[in-house]
Amino acid sequence: MPPAFLTSQPDANSLRVSLQSGACNAESICEELLTEVATRDPQLQAFAWLEPEHIRQQAQQLDAQFARSGPVGPAHGLPLTLKDIIDTAGIPTENGTALDVSRIPTRQAAVVERWLAAGGLLFGKTVTTELAFMCPAQTANPHGADFTPGGSSAGSAAAVAAGMVPIALGSQTGGSVIRPAAYCGVFGFKPTFDLLPTDGVLMQSHTLDTLGVFARSVADLALVTDLLRQEPVPGTQPTLSLLESCQQPFVSAPRFGFVTLPYWERTSEQTLSKLEQLRSSLGNQAVNLNLPSAFQDSIRQRETINFVEMVHHYGHYAERGRASLSSQVQGAMEQGGQRTAVEYLAALASREVLNRALESLFAVADVLVMPAAPDHAPQRNTTGDPVFNGIWTLCGTPSLTLPLFQAENDMPIGMQLVAPRGADARLLRVAQWLWEQQG
Amino acid sequence: MPPAFLTSQPDANSLRVSLQSGACNAESICEELLTEVATRDPQLQAFAWLEPEHIRQQAQQLDAQFARSGPVGPAHGLPLTLKDIIDTAGIPTENGTALDVSRIPTRQAAVVERWLAAGGLLFGKTVTTELAFMCPAQTANPHGADFTPGGSSAGSAAAVAAGMVPIALGSQTGGSVIRPAAYCGVFGFKPTFDLLPTDGVLMQSHTLDTLGVFARSVADLALVTDLLRQEPVPGTQPTLSLLESCQQPFVSAPRFGFVTLPYWERTSEQTLSKLEQLRSSLGNQAVNLNLPSAFQDSIRQRETINFVEMVHHYGHYAERGRASLSSQVQGAMEQGGQRTAVEYLAALASREVLNRALESLFAVADVLVMPAAPDHAPQRNTTGDPVFNGIWTLCGTPSLTLPLFQAENDMPIGMQLVAPRGADARLLRVAQWLWEQQG
Repeated sequence: MPPAFLTSQPDANSLRVSLQSGACNAESICEELLTEVATRDPQLQAFAWLEPEHIRQQAQQLDAQFARSGPVGPAHGLPLTLKDIIDTAGIPTENGTALDVSRIPTRQAAVVERWLAAGGLLFGKTVTTELAFMCPAQTANPHGADFTPGGSSAGSAAAVAAGMVPIALGSQTGGSVIRPAAYCGVFGFKPTFDLLPTDGVLMQSHTLDTLGVFARSVADLALVTDLLRQEPVPGTQPTLSLLESCQQPFVSAPRFGFVTLPYWERTSEQTLSKLEQLRSSLGNQAVNLNLPSAFQDSIRQRETINFVEMVHHYGHYAERGRASLSSQVQGAMEQGGQRTAVEYLAALASREVLNRALESLFAVADVLVMPAAPDHAPQRNTTGDPVFNGIWTLCGTPSLTLPLFQAENDMPIGMQLVAPRGADARLLRVAQWLWEQQG
Repeated sequence: MPPAFLTSQPDANSLRVSLQSGACNAESICEELLTEVATRDPQLQAFAWLEPEHIRQQAQQLDAQFARSGPVGPAHGLPLTLKDIIDTAGIPTENGTALDVSRIPTRQAAVVERWLAAGGLLFGKTVTTELAFMCPAQTANPHGADFTPGGSSAGSAAAVAAGMVPIALGSQTGGSVIRPAAYCGVFGFKPTFDLLPTDGVLMQSHTLDTLGVFARSVADLALVTDLLRQEPVPGTQPTLSLLESCQQPFVSAPRFGFVTLPYWERTSEQTLSKLEQLRSSLGNQAVNLNLPSAFQDSIRQRETINFVEMVHHYGHYAERGRASLSSQVQGAMEQGGQRTAVEYLAALASREVLNRALESLFAVADVLVMPAAPDHAPQRNTTGDPVFNGIWTLCGTPSLTLPLFQAENDMPIGMQLVAPRGADARLLRVAQWLWEQQG
């Protein structure tokens, strides 16, 4: 039984079937979504920019093209919303900061270009926390107005959770996709580092920044990633699309490696008991594994990279108006300015050490399993705790959260799956299997 | 007229013609070289390791293979010596430090593997300064025992200059190929960063370390680089080899951009007058250009990258025996330890800024021209001044020195040519043209 908080609306794959066959058109889908937006967004404030006319124009144009010559491309008519750090030509992209108010890019981000070329539809821009960092934004959690939707991709998670849009893009430098997805009770996916191109996306950390997807199903995570991913290297083998991969049946049942992470003591009793419930339901497919000791410093190492590169990339914001920056951003930049180059290089080098250390775990488990966050969403004076997400951003490994559980107060609890770098197809396939068993 | 200090021995291209046709064999070439080594190396101390029997065995085996089935490959029988930071399986590679005495690698460096696969012959290992840094080594300059051969590729430059071997590999992190080549009066070439693979080479700075070639002709620089370079990316256009390129005639005469560099005031009167001689001989092919102001900080930026990465890569030497390290290495590592991560990142980012700034210069000149060093080789208490070389290592641009001039004391003076990143073929072709005009 899926948790009660999940919307029953069709996912993007279902919409796609209807759109490609002509069983429904883009305009009717958008009108339904716009009705949801009109009803819910005044309270939720998930959207940073949304012009119904901009959406209707796109829908009408796509429908007209469909009438003439069929679907424009594989994303024909699908509405996607974008975290407001992803540049959209001619449309405000304010990066969640007063310093970028009324900033209108002239160029599209690479993912936007691809989405439009595939016939996709842009369904507004969603609220980001200030500069995709830790200062809470105005957005509320759709499952409880007192709770944070998480951050930094607050609006993307909330918009999908509230049924205002089926799919959304966000980004993760620490835990900004997996955490809000878990807090809002949706499916969230951070692919392998660099699988989705970040040209035209606000850069906070060139070593960590990773685009990710929010959706209503595992298949939607795969579909959106397929449509936006970097072109495969010429000459490499053609492979199954992620969507096809995640629909492949398993010959032998996948194995799940349960690990405890640094700062495990922060995990709530409720979350631990849901994890235990998952573990026991998996029987002998669950194995308990120890995280290698190399991970002891990984929280600090990720932070070093994040804060140092933040000074490098956000220096111009501090120059233009330090007073406009939150204490969170200022504090991180202050710390970043103090780290030595040698410490930074050691942190960069740790990525390979950590990935090698993971090899022994992935020799006995297809994916690793752990809570997506220490607890359900906390109150809105914070964006929550990314402590279980950041180490996977550091590693560049793909991670995914499934909205498997519900706390006593009805707030969602997500479980996170992690696979080796490059094994995005495996991660999606195992997640799909698990969802079918458990969801 | 070529300067009097140049050896009249055949270059590797001539030897190659004789070897491939069977007009001479590897053993006879090696015996002649071994006679030179026996005569000169006791004074010069260019070789760190050289076993005549090891050389004879290779030569006899190659000659036997030739007798059976012709040349083993395009480098058949050509003797190449290697700076002693390039790993050779089963042969000592001591990196110029007491901390690596008797270190015998089990794996070949990538360039060694390629050289042997092409039928080439390994002709010993040449002296490097301690850990390829600035502390003078025992090697003398073949043109004057009181003078430094330069560093850090001291032995490679001296061995080629003394006629003990036709071609040698060295490496440059600051000015360790171009400077010793100029001081010893040979041809030296630092290709575009990463054109020659550095796997299996002592790593001092992963951003700067570049393998380079010492030889008796421009064509030899091209030949050795062709035989050792990284495989072209699959699917890219096939291009002329560097050797073929440097033998192409020019339709319109190449243009030379004369620039003055930071710390230009260090340039000796003699060197300036030779530069002036070159400039006037080129007539209207010479243009005077201003180095962009972005280069003002480039000396410090290169140093930051070098010293920081040195701490990262040489930290284990300091742990094993700080007291065995020279004051030069210790001092650089101390400075590296103090640089901030933000300063380091800014230095890394400067590379793209500098290369973009060079575009306007290369719009009016095919290559840039300047002295390879502020003066001829100084006395042996230093390895000389790399101030005119390091900025090109920072840029990753290919640079080359021609042994064009001779000082009043008969010491060689080299002139440096620089081309845009990736324009190695152009650089070699213009250098060949200039040598034919001037040499």
